[in-house]
Amino acid sequence: MIQADLIISGASELVTVAGERGRPRRGQEMGELGIIRQGALAARRGQIVWVGPTEELTSAVQAMAFAKHIKAEGKTVLPGLVDPHTHLIFAGSRENEFALRIQGKSYMEIAAAGGGINATVNATRQAGKDELKRLAQRSLDRMLSLGTTTVEAKSGYGLTLAAELKMLEVIRELSAEGPLTLVRTFMGAHAVPSEYRENPEAYVDLVITRMIPEMGARGLARFCDVFCEQGVFSVEQSEHILQAARHAGMELRIHADELTDQGGAAMAARLRARTADHLLFANDDGIRQMAEAGVIAVLLPGTAYFLNLQRYARARDIIAAGVPVALATDFNPGSCMTESMPLIMNLACTQMRMLPAEAITASTINAAWAVGEQDRVGSLEVGKQADLVMLDAPNHEHLCYHFGVNLVEAVIKNGKALVERGQRR
Amino acid sequence: MIQADLIISGASELVTVAGERGRPRRGQEMGELGIIRQGALAARRGQIVWVGPTEELTSAVQAMAFAKHIKAEGKTVLPGLVDPHTHLIFAGSRENEFALRIQGKSYMEIAAAGGGINATVNATRQAGKDELKRLAQRSLDRMLSLGTTTVEAKSGYGLTLAAELKMLEVIRELSAEGPLTLVRTFMGAHAVPSEYRENPEAYVDLVITRMIPEMGARGLARFCDVFCEQGVFSVEQSEHILQAARHAGMELRIHADELTDQGGAAMAARLRARTADHLLFANDDGIRQMAEAGVIAVLLPGTAYFLNLQRYARARDIIAAGVPVALATDFNPGSCMTESMPLIMNLACTQMRMLPAEAITASTINAAWAVGEQDRVGSLEVGKQADLVMLDAPNHEHLCYHFGVNLVEAVIKNGKALVERGQRR
Repeated sequence: MIQADLIISGASELVTVAGERGRPRRGQEMGELGIIRQGALAARRGQIVWVGPTEELTSAVQAMAFAKHIKAEGKTVLPGLVDPHTHLIFAGSRENEFALRIQGKSYMEIAAAGGGINATVNATRQAGKDELKRLAQRSLDRMLSLGTTTVEAKSGYGLTLAAELKMLEVIRELSAEGPLTLVRTFMGAHAVPSEYRENPEAYVDLVITRMIPEMGARGLARFCDVFCEQGVFSVEQSEHILQAARHAGMELRIHADELTDQGGAAMAARLRARTADHLLFANDDGIRQMAEAGVIAVLLPGTAYFLNLQRYARARDIIAAGVPVALATDFNPGSCMTESMPLIMNLACTQMRMLPAEAITASTINAAWAVGEQDRVGSLEVGKQADLVMLDAPNHEHLCYHFGVNLVEAVIKNGKALVERGQRR
Repeated sequence: MIQADLIISGASELVTVAGERGRPRRGQEMGELGIIRQGALAARRGQIVWVGPTEELTSAVQAMAFAKHIKAEGKTVLPGLVDPHTHLIFAGSRENEFALRIQGKSYMEIAAAGGGINATVNATRQAGKDELKRLAQRSLDRMLSLGTTTVEAKSGYGLTLAAELKMLEVIRELSAEGPLTLVRTFMGAHAVPSEYRENPEAYVDLVITRMIPEMGARGLARFCDVFCEQGVFSVEQSEHILQAARHAGMELRIHADELTDQGGAAMAARLRARTADHLLFANDDGIRQMAEAGVIAVLLPGTAYFLNLQRYARARDIIAAGVPVALATDFNPGSCMTESMPLIMNLACTQMRMLPAEAITASTINAAWAVGEQDRVGSLEVGKQADLVMLDAPNHEHLCYHFGVNLVEAVIKNGKALVERGQRR
């Protein structure tokens, strides 16, 4: 008999997302969720030890004396959600800019009124680590209450060596303190800071010669990301930065083809980046090359929605091309002020025509692949962490269909119940 | 000294929405929120007795021995939200149809697969009153936790005299049991039921000669609503039904110009309806006539979003024409499965370019006008009900800007705290 300290039984749907193990899901696989009806799961010391039909539970699993037993009749259980693209760490807020943009103010007028990314850079540079941690913890609490258990978080509002280090240290400390797992990305090339406006090449040099070696030496970042866009960093600059980052031991991600077609998708394929993100303007060739190179597309429909870009990434074409798709919030104060993965999944379905099953694959196993955590999280399989979510809904489709409300009834992280009835314990 | 049993003090913003009393807000008035910084409010026996700056509170108001005192430092306090268009009462759900629509299935294919409005009509006809109440109570709990304190609710999934009566009785009982206030609308003309498909005129006759007199005699509905649309009820049929309803003592609302331009806006003006709702295809003449007749436009951006209609009502033109605008969820299982007014406000801002202040006016005082409750709710003024919401945010803009999460920290209804830290007590 298998011994267990956590048992979940009777789930109307136990969404395992089990399947192909060696690579992210693509094409039709994205619609296959490995659902067990009347499903059960057992865990011990935070690790999944058994998954199967409830009727086989008692003959396979023995509850330890102090075991917690969650009855999930009428509920849906799925893997804890993974949010693979956030700008979690920042000070200040930009609701003023939100109202100005609605009034049709230009980017320059907004910047003149104290808005834009430089507003967040200034506030974040001035904030101490404790303040940044306190603010991020509030966002992490919201994420957890909405079912997210693993989060990628980027630097990129510091744009000096010291401020970028500060941001990555904050992310490291938040992850160590838990309960959420945070994956660290260095994004010194998020914007050219105002003090380098006249000489952006000098800032690129600073990123390459000072910041990246320091991040590499300290092991502060697993990934390096670049905002490759007209007026931000060119393809050439982005390649230089990313090659230096690879040399320093980091894996690569790219903000690619968000506002214009820069050939970012093709660059991501050429560099064998782990992910290319946004992709609203990615061309067919670039998408095909991503498929061949195994680059994951991280789609961020919340940003297209929030900025009312009147255009979304071509999710159906990207899936049809065989590119594995992940979804993320892009949580940040300027272009997507939400921590909610469920709302992103609804946007993916309603605005990009992804099916609920595809949106769930994109927010669990493929998102885990997108942050390199696929061996630990993203599916409910023996040997993985017991990170899971219980919904007050009889099937997985409700998570995408019933929007703007929180259907999460419980969140389990590493085998521990952290949220019950939607509230942090 | 004014005696009070409820005191709220120190609000970073106390959003009174006080202003013109004799008519709903229009044009520039929609952007004026009557904000008191460092604001305070006092209530007694559920009624607001004082509103003003916190520094004047102690010299004007005396707390009674058992008074509750809420300290709102750093928080925003605003009137309880009013949702003036919902199809709250139904059985069954239509997540299956949601996935089929994403796959591009036609309305006929969806109906053949058991979807469409007839699926909800069948389930609602079969459900008992207790079942319908239990289901609606769950939705009302979600609404309350998101800040809504007054809700309009329609019949229209019965489409027989008995089933329409059942729905309106359920709404009446839910309102009597509280805590939310429900306003009842008879909508027998929501669809032609399948048993009348070959003879829709006979169904119109049934509505006019049997249902409306019965509703009128029993006083079960304050409003009558009609779905005036190509293939549903024509302008001529709608006018006959609405004139009968007025004769029976009901006020009028109209689902107008949602999917095609039927001249619904002009009809609403001609009939002096209280509201015309949806209006995606309303023409300029109709909008001008609504302004002259004082008809309120109830806009439902959640539906345009959920159905991905690629078009929203022209809120800016409607406001510019002098039509008072209200916002509502349109909560229903087929075309808008959300109970969240805050998300609707975010949609109004991002997709229809309404300003946060306009969205708040549209969800409070103008929404109260839209359901005829303007003398009781919709603003924080002496003599009105103490229905209010406290947000975990320093200003009102956050309610529209920070989306997909629940910023509501407390909800007070009739002077009683019903929700604290986002959870029903």
